[in-house]
Amino acid sequence: MERSLIESIAAELTGSQPAQQLVRGIGDDAAVVRAGAALCVTSVDAMVQDVHFRLGEGADTPFDVGWRALAGALSDLAAMGARAGEAYVALGVSAEVGETGALELMRGAIELATQTKTVIAGGDVVTAPVLMACVTVVGWADDTSELVGRNGARVGDLVGVTGRLGGRHRRPRPRLNEGRALARAGVHAMIDLSDGLAADARHIGESSGVRLEIELAKLPLAEGVPTWEQAASAGEDYELCFCVAPDLRERMQDAVSEVSDVGVTWIGSVEPPGPADGPDRAGAVFSDERGEVVRLQGFEHSW
Amino acid sequence: MERSLIESIAAELTGSQPAQQLVRGIGDDAAVVRAGAALCVTSVDAMVQDVHFRLGEGADTPFDVGWRALAGALSDLAAMGARAGEAYVALGVSAEVGETGALELMRGAIELATQTKTVIAGGDVVTAPVLMACVTVVGWADDTSELVGRNGARVGDLVGVTGRLGGRHRRPRPRLNEGRALARAGVHAMIDLSDGLAADARHIGESSGVRLEIELAKLPLAEGVPTWEQAASAGEDYELCFCVAPDLRERMQDAVSEVSDVGVTWIGSVEPPGPADGPDRAGAVFSDERGEVVRLQGFEHSW
Repeated sequence: MERSLIESIAAELTGSQPAQQLVRGIGDDAAVVRAGAALCVTSVDAMVQDVHFRLGEGADTPFDVGWRALAGALSDLAAMGARAGEAYVALGVSAEVGETGALELMRGAIELATQTKTVIAGGDVVTAPVLMACVTVVGWADDTSELVGRNGARVGDLVGVTGRLGGRHRRPRPRLNEGRALARAGVHAMIDLSDGLAADARHIGESSGVRLEIELAKLPLAEGVPTWEQAASAGEDYELCFCVAPDLRERMQDAVSEVSDVGVTWIGSVEPPGPADGPDRAGAVFSDERGEVVRLQGFEHSW
Repeated sequence: MERSLIESIAAELTGSQPAQQLVRGIGDDAAVVRAGAALCVTSVDAMVQDVHFRLGEGADTPFDVGWRALAGALSDLAAMGARAGEAYVALGVSAEVGETGALELMRGAIELATQTKTVIAGGDVVTAPVLMACVTVVGWADDTSELVGRNGARVGDLVGVTGRLGGRHRRPRPRLNEGRALARAGVHAMIDLSDGLAADARHIGESSGVRLEIELAKLPLAEGVPTWEQAASAGEDYELCFCVAPDLRERMQDAVSEVSDVGVTWIGSVEPPGPADGPDRAGAVFSDERGEVVRLQGFEHSW
């Protein structure tokens, strides 16, 4: 559902509004707005009970939900290379969790905000049938050269990822420092893996008009993830995928290792796309260790 | 519920985060963040089906909901005196309304965005049990002197409101031009009446450490509103309430009439507060045409 809806919304917006201040709008991890000399980078992430999380024994606590709602939005800033600024949290509070649960959710968000030096500057509280959190984050950059979108991948680039894929964490860490380091070191395109590598590699390929060729056998699997397919298809991953000129390979590894110990793995390359109606059109292709193409599903949800 | 929850959240935030860039945080209509030379003014408003609106015959259409979700957030910018910039719309889409309803909601938001020169720059789309919209708006100002909060009312000020109170509009117009004109003309404090005059006048009084004395007989009633009580207690009003030095009375009327024909009505004055535990403490008092105090209820939802 969501992909076609997002495309319809984008179509409604096109031409309906003047937007000189908009450096990047719908179609990337975050919107970029010119604000005097600075750039304001904004992303919104909504999480709904029984859609994105479950509460209860063996499942998430409201604290986990608050943490992850903020983490998801911050991860979009990481993928743009922006530094985290402020967060605004709108809470939908159900009778089931009440004030106690809502406050626990906020404590989770505040804990991650503190760790990432994000300021929670406002929000809203409403009654809702289930627990929900809608987090807007605002990040900042001094210049467009500090930021990177999905649409800059070039033929010949290497494709890299941070960390290990497919792990599900109750309290994941958005790769803010890594994203900023990679953007400043000169990656051509970057995205976070919130929809899973299968979908997000395709987003880069389609936005850039190129074809990403990913070798599944090279994927760095998180502990306990049994197959490449699972690592590539799992959504809600907080690692970053990026495309970069091959001669910058070492510079990228150094840039990441200066700020973090998650590491970088090279998983593929960027190739020219075939005809738009053919199997090799712009997007992403995944192959197994025998070189055979594997079809993978991903999630779609952001715009 | 919401008031105590908001206070608990504010208490959690206090001291937990460094916030040099925060000019105004929780406790006003919008947060104000320093962004280089500019000021970024942000507010979030969430609307949930069967809490804030109903769908169906004789009730709202998704178009109305989209319009009003954006209007509510823009109204907060109006109350600060900021100019509208960008909006981010997170949609919770139920099976009941589907893609068609979600797109109609977006069309309502886009229509108001076009009329107010607001750019819809991004958002999120998720599945939800009922239709929901969470709108974040970002406004801008060049200098803190252009903006006005709730906390600046002074003893001796007049209390004014724009337009007529208590009317319920499917597609209300946020008072952006009026708010900006009033802020620039020098009001000391301003708020929008989204919680209703009874609650919002008290917000100004409490934030400013003064007591607003409102004469109900002076309220400008919207067409079809039978009583002052109803006009003062209705939430979701989009007019502005403001406090201003008495010698600026005419300047304010002129400032508003230059940008709009909604007009200004003077409804009370700002008095010193009595002891914090007494009936005359900081806040607001409402009296009827015989001078007798009337108790009124209002809504609470924003932070």
